[in-house]
Amino acid sequence: EIVAAIGAALKDGPLNGKRILVTSGPTHEPIDPVRYIANRSSGAQGAALAAALRDLGAEVVFVTGPADVPPPSGVDVVPVQSAQQMSDAVEAALPVDVGVFAAAVADWRVASASDKKLKKSRDGLPTLAFAENPDILKRVSHMTQGRPGLVVGFAAETDDVINHATAKRLRKGCDWIVANDVSPATGIMGGSENAVVLISEDGAEEWPRMGKTQVARQLADRIAAALVG
Amino acid sequence: EIVAAIGAALKDGPLNGKRILVTSGPTHEPIDPVRYIANRSSGAQGAALAAALRDLGAEVVFVTGPADVPPPSGVDVVPVQSAQQMSDAVEAALPVDVGVFAAAVADWRVASASDKKLKKSRDGLPTLAFAENPDILKRVSHMTQGRPGLVVGFAAETDDVINHATAKRLRKGCDWIVANDVSPATGIMGGSENAVVLISEDGAEEWPRMGKTQVARQLADRIAAALVG
Repeated sequence: EIVAAIGAALKDGPLNGKRILVTSGPTHEPIDPVRYIANRSSGAQGAALAAALRDLGAEVVFVTGPADVPPPSGVDVVPVQSAQQMSDAVEAALPVDVGVFAAAVADWRVASASDKKLKKSRDGLPTLAFAENPDILKRVSHMTQGRPGLVVGFAAETDDVINHATAKRLRKGCDWIVANDVSPATGIMGGSENAVVLISEDGAEEWPRMGKTQVARQLADRIAAALVG
Repeated sequence: EIVAAIGAALKDGPLNGKRILVTSGPTHEPIDPVRYIANRSSGAQGAALAAALRDLGAEVVFVTGPADVPPPSGVDVVPVQSAQQMSDAVEAALPVDVGVFAAAVADWRVASASDKKLKKSRDGLPTLAFAENPDILKRVSHMTQGRPGLVVGFAAETDDVINHATAKRLRKGCDWIVANDVSPATGIMGGSENAVVLISEDGAEEWPRMGKTQVARQLADRIAAALVG
């Protein structure tokens, strides 16, 4: 790591001169001033990946929701709360050479979010109307002008990981999907380890379970290899 | 505080021999393995109150949801996630001399909570059915046998604080309501200060804005006065 850090400082890493966007963490979607919908993403994998890319010399823009782990040093941190804010921040960060979308973005927001605290309705149950959030990964993947040379999505699955993630790659139009199994039994969501499958046009490559830092370094090396050739 | 702590250690505080239940923090209601509904309660006021009651010599059972602030030392901590778990933990903690319900308990849970991560439905929007959570404050307030001698509820309001909280006291059947205005503009939710109104059968008593620790001490003193007379 010291060698990598010195390399980055000397600006002779393999990603020297490359601008890379990393999104990370959960999003929080407000229901009313006190309630919100969240997800269990700790932001650990995204933060480790941003650090690993920085260590290889990249200029990293790190767009992060309210994560449990702090952002790494030496990256350009853009904090956001909601999916809409994350979408705006991604828009503002473009163009980039590589986009890595590791955040667990809420698919939907509460369309009826209230300025006042919701009171119980007559039958005691609230009515929440939902609206679809911007699909950041799909939108960036389908850019006709200024699309990043490499777009990497993440897929947190709880069953049938490879099939779901392979379908997601085609549906979103991204180049790679980094998929993992976040079933509670795996302890991966919020834990320090990860067991990922890298999905590309070449198929599915299963990596052994290892620390999130190690996953990040291996992925950063693969990104560097893809860019530099 | 040192005097109070020594008093507690010597077991000669005014609440010596009293067993007091304090609930605190938010609850998290699962939607699926990765998503949940949360609220912005930091647990700061509940933790400060538990510490203040401990300092007056009480034996404190502290039932806490996933809060931002750590629980105080010297209390019996029972960590929970959901409202149902909190209800079960309260049940198990009874009987107590005083029950203080400072937690921001979700009124409802997702009835259709899924073991698998929700996929987008055909029209892209999820369908969430809600069910009412146990009303812990109301249930304890209405106990016919073994009701705590003093039941204190909290009310986080965003408008018309005194009217809403006065109605809540009657609806729940508790003795006191500690009400506050959690509109975002006040900075109280998640902040270090609080401005509360104490609602009892005598009416509404507005306290000046002060630190949450100070609110806690003043409330603990009032509880001691009510018990010891």
